[in-house]
Amino acid sequence: MLRLYDFLPSGNGYKVRLLLHQLAIPFERIELDIMRGETRTQEFLAKNPNGRIPLLELADGTCLAESNAILWYLAEGTPFLPTDRLARAHVLQWMFFEQYSHEPNIATSRFWLTHLELTEERRAGLAQKRPLGHAALAVMESHLATRDYFIGAYSIADVALYAYTHVAPEGGFDLSSYPAINAWLGRVRAQPRHIPITHG
Amino acid sequence: MLRLYDFLPSGNGYKVRLLLHQLAIPFERIELDIMRGETRTQEFLAKNPNGRIPLLELADGTCLAESNAILWYLAEGTPFLPTDRLARAHVLQWMFFEQYSHEPNIATSRFWLTHLELTEERRAGLAQKRPLGHAALAVMESHLATRDYFIGAYSIADVALYAYTHVAPEGGFDLSSYPAINAWLGRVRAQPRHIPITHG
Repeated sequence: MLRLYDFLPSGNGYKVRLLLHQLAIPFERIELDIMRGETRTQEFLAKNPNGRIPLLELADGTCLAESNAILWYLAEGTPFLPTDRLARAHVLQWMFFEQYSHEPNIATSRFWLTHLELTEERRAGLAQKRPLGHAALAVMESHLATRDYFIGAYSIADVALYAYTHVAPEGGFDLSSYPAINAWLGRVRAQPRHIPITHG
Repeated sequence: MLRLYDFLPSGNGYKVRLLLHQLAIPFERIELDIMRGETRTQEFLAKNPNGRIPLLELADGTCLAESNAILWYLAEGTPFLPTDRLARAHVLQWMFFEQYSHEPNIATSRFWLTHLELTEERRAGLAQKRPLGHAALAVMESHLATRDYFIGAYSIADVALYAYTHVAPEGGFDLSSYPAINAWLGRVRAQPRHIPITHG
């Protein structure tokens, strides 16, 4: 059986949980408390030298890290990943956008505000991340203004971007001025076998 | 003909240039000076709303953004991208690692040191990025200690990670204590049709 090393509040972990659930693939979930250093033990670093969740462990012990690489692996051959070469590259474009322009601003702000002490340094960091996060949301808003999903039909690009967008208010990002994003969030939530981020 | 919107000092642009050259695919290169706002014009934002190079424009005008998504698109069906499902996912794992754990620390430090004024805020930012960049290099070093390339044979995972690793000293990262990385840099440089980052 697949084994997922995870941390329940993590949007990166949630992406994988959500897709596994939507694909009806059974898996064993191992909760690691990143606040207590459980991803930095010798045992875990032997599985992922980068010391991060989510990590997918296959039945033979092979490990795969990076949430969006895991999504790609699981979605291959399913309706969650198109077969057309250019459409697949656009799925990847949005997943790299998510990890580079979206997550480091929106997810990191949420993590600081919900899990860490608000030091002066982090307060300054939040102020820097605010406009960058809104810039990423503006790119999404303009793209979704004329589309139901990022790439034609619902795909892992939507799974990847939904994870931290729907909890962006927890990072101090007010979504009320993004109507296309809000409509898209509703469409994603209405997909068959959707689960909330609190579902382990 | 393919058109590549590019900025010569950019490692992200270099990745695409290098692969196009190694695949012997002809392309037209359009240099945009990001220091003069040339990626933030209305004309360019219509092609890439995220306002970044590299951007690949296909013959029919379709655009593809994000350096690693472009690599994937170009490498499909070539020896630069394996066919095995798990090996492909590991290529993606390393490319997401590059964009999340490596580039924001090593490439950004290099950009600040070579292109921007060293303000007090940036000096503090450099100090924060230093240990994070070395952590990424340490992950690479341990992986390469027992391997010639990231995934068996030379692939776009190596192209993606070579781009900013070989110029890491320009970002203040001394590579002398990473023997496996240095040996790998030499193997990548020795690949057929290799070009340096200064080659447009």
